Amino acid sequence: MSIFTRPVLEINLDNLVKNYNLLAKIIAPATPSAVVKDDAYGIGAELVAQTLYEKANCRNFWVAHAVEGAKIAPLVAGAKIYLLQGVGEDNIDLIKQFKLIPVIASPEMLEFWKQHKIEGIKPAIQVETGLNRLGFRLADLEKLSKDDLSLFSLVMSHLACADEKDHFMNQHQLDNFNYIRETYFPKLPASLSASDGAFLGDAFCCDMVRLGAAMYGINTAPYRPNQMNNIITVKAPVLEIAELPKGDFVGYSATYRAATNKKIAIVSIGYGDGIPRSLSNVGKVFFNICGNWYESRILGRVSMDNIICDVSDIDNLEVGDFGFLVFDDYTLDDIARDAGTISYEVLSRIGKNPRFDRKYDIK
Amino acid sequence: MSIFTRPVLEINLDNLVKNYNLLAKIIAPATPSAVVKDDAYGIGAELVAQTLYEKANCRNFWVAHAVEGAKIAPLVAGAKIYLLQGVGEDNIDLIKQFKLIPVIASPEMLEFWKQHKIEGIKPAIQVETGLNRLGFRLADLEKLSKDDLSLFSLVMSHLACADEKDHFMNQHQLDNFNYIRETYFPKLPASLSASDGAFLGDAFCCDMVRLGAAMYGINTAPYRPNQMNNIITVKAPVLEIAELPKGDFVGYSATYRAATNKKIAIVSIGYGDGIPRSLSNVGKVFFNICGNWYESRILGRVSMDNIICDVSDIDNLEVGDFGFLVFDDYTLDDIARDAGTISYEVLSRIGKNPRFDRKYDIK
Repeated sequence: MSIFTRPVLEINLDNLVKNYNLLAKIIAPATPSAVVKDDAYGIGAELVAQTLYEKANCRNFWVAHAVEGAKIAPLVAGAKIYLLQGVGEDNIDLIKQFKLIPVIASPEMLEFWKQHKIEGIKPAIQVETGLNRLGFRLADLEKLSKDDLSLFSLVMSHLACADEKDHFMNQHQLDNFNYIRETYFPKLPASLSASDGAFLGDAFCCDMVRLGAAMYGINTAPYRPNQMNNIITVKAPVLEIAELPKGDFVGYSATYRAATNKKIAIVSIGYGDGIPRSLSNVGKVFFNICGNWYESRILGRVSMDNIICDVSDIDNLEVGDFGFLVFDDYTLDDIARDAGTISYEVLSRIGKNPRFDRKYDIK
Repeated sequence: MSIFTRPVLEINLDNLVKNYNLLAKIIAPATPSAVVKDDAYGIGAELVAQTLYEKANCRNFWVAHAVEGAKIAPLVAGAKIYLLQGVGEDNIDLIKQFKLIPVIASPEMLEFWKQHKIEGIKPAIQVETGLNRLGFRLADLEKLSKDDLSLFSLVMSHLACADEKDHFMNQHQLDNFNYIRETYFPKLPASLSASDGAFLGDAFCCDMVRLGAAMYGINTAPYRPNQMNNIITVKAPVLEIAELPKGDFVGYSATYRAATNKKIAIVSIGYGDGIPRSLSNVGKVFFNICGNWYESRILGRVSMDNIICDVSDIDNLEVGDFGFLVFDDYTLDDIARDAGTISYEVLSRIGKNPRFDRKYDIK
């Protein structure tokens, strides 16, 4: 019998590259670009950026913040790195040092840029088309001078409902974007879609698509089966197997009470590792015994470092075996559904704890 | 006008020390110890451990994993560092190298320890008293030999419902713990309570109390007002202020629709930074204008990097001002209540993103 203590996060970078290439085909002839903000959704921005740069010839990257851009810049020489949160006093030095490309999001930010302009950097401009988040509104665009309009190298916007193929917002935003392009930026390259928009057809792909969630294996077109490959496995060792006597309670605040005698396993992972606490009493842990998969239910509250699950029906489970929280047949989309959130949030959280034993698979 | 882009996490280490000292008084004569697992609940284990070691003379620390213990060990020379997740093949070398003290949680783990014993290290033993999580059950304890029982330096257990003063589980677990102590470990120092148990009276404090959540400012005795000092401020800059016309939708999946004309602010923080996505359409952002605090509601979905909020009634708000997500008058307990979870989970998540601009206040 072997004993282990640490949760393990396995990341399949080959599948990441496969997903990127598959998406690149779908959006062709638009240029693919990779969204590696939020530490590549927690997967590790440096390794993801370097892998896509070397194995998939990716030359355009998107991050939110300059500190994120600065981390990957040395690994992707000559590539363009766009900053979605734009420019300000707290990142202008990094932008200069690493030749990052801010996305100008508001008239005030444009004023700041004009005062601090850096030679050799032509920013992008974000325009608002219906999401009502960042970007120049029509009233803002009308006030821009010819000189202002000539400052930019790319015009972009972002879709609100692209994961619903027939949502009226999609065409509405496309129409708004095309109007803005034609009226103000007729010669600029344009980017409207992230990886959910990639599946909406050529009109939505424009010149460049920002590939994020789908590249990481998430189904961004949930109205049909996922075409992407899973890249994430999360597993953690069983620290103990015990009898749970009928009538006993389980976990914090005693939210589960055994109505029958049961057998439980304590698995060494919890919300500290990014497993949503909302999986309390509803989530699942999977075990592979001699090649067969078994599903067990989480009992009681998910705690910071441990999950307790019902293994009454799983014979031959031993301390030291691993319970799987995410794997090819119970993906990020599945755990997110059970947790009452979206796979983006689950992925972003799981990648964050440095105490994970991280294993990156690449040929 | 100043423009900023990055979210800021301010941590008041003076208040951390104040909380530790206040708790130490409450539990006296029991020995205080500090729980710094999960990177000190995301606050930064190295700085927290070092601060408590130097400013509060803390000499006992608890982490979950050996990798966490190894990080703080060089900063707290001579202190005891307990590993709550115990010992296994994946951490035995670190345990040896940094003289960490594993908490043995199961008979199988004890067998492993006996095979890999390290001279000079006397582990702790966890016993199960009602939480039905990690620890030796009565049936396991009965099988231990005299030699087995002599291996340990501390006996510990963990309470399930200590944040509810009158919950029947508290006395039930105390009775079980005292029976186990008297029967099997009459001479060993004992630890039953974490910082919620600290408020249940002397009987629950035994020889050592494991101070975690309350030390970090969380109200672990929510049946009465919080006695602890807030140590966390989370704020993020306004990137844009815009009109939201009546009839327009906001954010992903268009989950908010304006019934009247409004003014919105886009704040540069999101679930990527640990702000729960469950705050969509229900959370709050606060602004301080000329010394006065104003509350605004989150509109639409919380996205990865941005939050949109209703600032229709806030005059004089400008791009570059900061919105507050957590501060002294809207604490971790408040945001957790609004998010439908517990403050432990919110704190653990907020501390994780390296893109935060972190500021540690200490005199």
